[in-house]
Amino acid sequence: MKLKMDVLALQDFLRTDFPQVSSDFVIDGLTADLLRVRLKTRDNHLRPGGTVSGPSMFALADVGVYLAILARLGPVALAVTTSCSIDFMRKPRAGQDLIGETRLLKLGRVLAVGDVLMFSEGENQPVARASLTYSIPPERG
Amino acid sequence: MKLKMDVLALQDFLRTDFPQVSSDFVIDGLTADLLRVRLKTRDNHLRPGGTVSGPSMFALADVGVYLAILARLGPVALAVTTSCSIDFMRKPRAGQDLIGETRLLKLGRVLAVGDVLMFSEGENQPVARASLTYSIPPERG
Amino acid sequence: MKLKMDVLALQDFLRTDFPQVSSDFVIDGLTADLLRVRLKTRDNHLRPGGTVSGPSMFALADVGVYLAILARLGPVALAVTTSCSIDFMRKPRAGQDLIGETRLLKLGRVLAVGDVLMFSEGENQPVARASLTYSIPPERG
Amino acid sequence: MKLKMDVLALQDFLRTDFPQVSSDFVIDGLTADLLRVRLKTRDNHLRPGGTVSGPSMFALADVGVYLAILARLGPVALAVTTSCSIDFMRKPRAGQDLIGETRLLKLGRVLAVGDVLMFSEGENQPVARASLTYSIPPERG
Repeated sequence: MKLKMDVLALQDFLRTDFPQVSSDFVIDGLTADLLRVRLKTRDNHLRPGGTVSGPSMFALADVGVYLAILARLGPVALAVTTSCSIDFMRKPRAGQDLIGETRLLKLGRVLAVGDVLMFSEGENQPVARASLTYSIPPERG
Repeated sequence: MKLKMDVLALQDFLRTDFPQVSSDFVIDGLTADLLRVRLKTRDNHLRPGGTVSGPSMFALADVGVYLAILARLGPVALAVTTSCSIDFMRKPRAGQDLIGETRLLKLGRVLAVGDVLMFSEGENQPVARASLTYSIPPERG
Repeated sequence: MKLKMDVLALQDFLRTDFPQVSSDFVIDGLTADLLRVRLKTRDNHLRPGGTVSGPSMFALADVGVYLAILARLGPVALAVTTSCSIDFMRKPRAGQDLIGETRLLKLGRVLAVGDVLMFSEGENQPVARASLTYSIPPERG
Repeated sequence: MKLKMDVLALQDFLRTDFPQVSSDFVIDGLTADLLRVRLKTRDNHLRPGGTVSGPSMFALADVGVYLAILARLGPVALAVTTSCSIDFMRKPRAGQDLIGETRLLKLGRVLAVGDVLMFSEGENQPVARASLTYSIPPERG
């Protein structure tokens, strides 16, 4: 699956189309196989004890797969999340950013599926994994 | 499963233990079978078009099952979300609160499972469904 | 969502189109809100200890939602399972049939979502819950 | 996580403890990072059209993660599946075995989580992905 957008184009798209959340996320890298996206942890992402909240991890996974689809379809797409399954496996390290390693497993005509392994920066063991399905709207021409 | 906490006790617990999010949620009702919790939709829950974001729906489901467990175990519990599967089925209605109808399906010694149907207020068709598993920590003392 | 097929029509459809499994399943009831399907437990569904295996519970949930979709679309449909999340909550009772109470939560143009609560016959507490998504093929003709 | 059992020991364990299914599965390889298990496709795994059925794919994923846990805990373990989420992404190739590439993401005191990518033999694109959680019983003795 060839890439139609690079890191800068994706980051621009986030800024213009998702101004509410774009400042939370930075794209650390993008290849044909892997998109690496970072949640810049702030106070509003935290739960008591200083660890990243579940909804914030969900948001990271959701953004990761969305961007991985966009990188292949180009900025016209308006994919919609239809399902997510997420496993919370370890407590994120307090005060660290969270890195989401995103892989696109399928990009079909109607559905796309991706999965995301999430790590506290600098750690080897994943804190969470998620898989998400997006519905791809019919092409408008 | 007998209830050990009522609506007021749960709402108090939210306020003291989860001050970051407690103002987002109101418990609309609690019986032995059903806990109804409301996400008071605000700007920071919204995506372009005015519909509630995925992470906000995740948060509603997460809080719903957490409170349903707490109502049965009492305020000493510190259950931890271990997994969630969520299906987004319809677009939430812009500007409406979201209601989460939560049922506890299992409350075991180690794991609890609940599910949540989410509705835009005043609508009949669910916008999303979620099921969540919590890990129950061993009793202390 | 009006029903286009009744119990007998569904049972006939299973017999002709899924001869490999149709003898495993009986439809116990069908209304606009609920389809009740029974797995007639046999030796090949069992694991050591006499309880129904995970794959057999998956099969029951899969058949339940498939039939619930079919009942509404009619026998022309050829829906395909795209995802399933399943929670195994209690050990099924040895030697008992398993009953799947199936509800269709969404029947869209492209995707359908249903969920299933599974009970050992005669028991009150569910042994498992599952939610499934089916992809609906575009209409032909 | 060091391995306590090798391929032969695992295969023996399957044969004695799961005689109903052991002839369906062959362990193709095992390292510290990856367990590769094969479903030897037979008629009873197939659906109309000759593709592997959903319950058979579920069974492959379930066995894969079970064996990956066993390889680390040794043959005394009796882990129980508590949840599975599975995405069916492509039609398996008719007449081919299915290969499940299994990774253990967490092996905790109480819960283990693994995921499985499934491929029709000789193909590059996965037909399905699954993640499973097992409950680890408390140690006895």
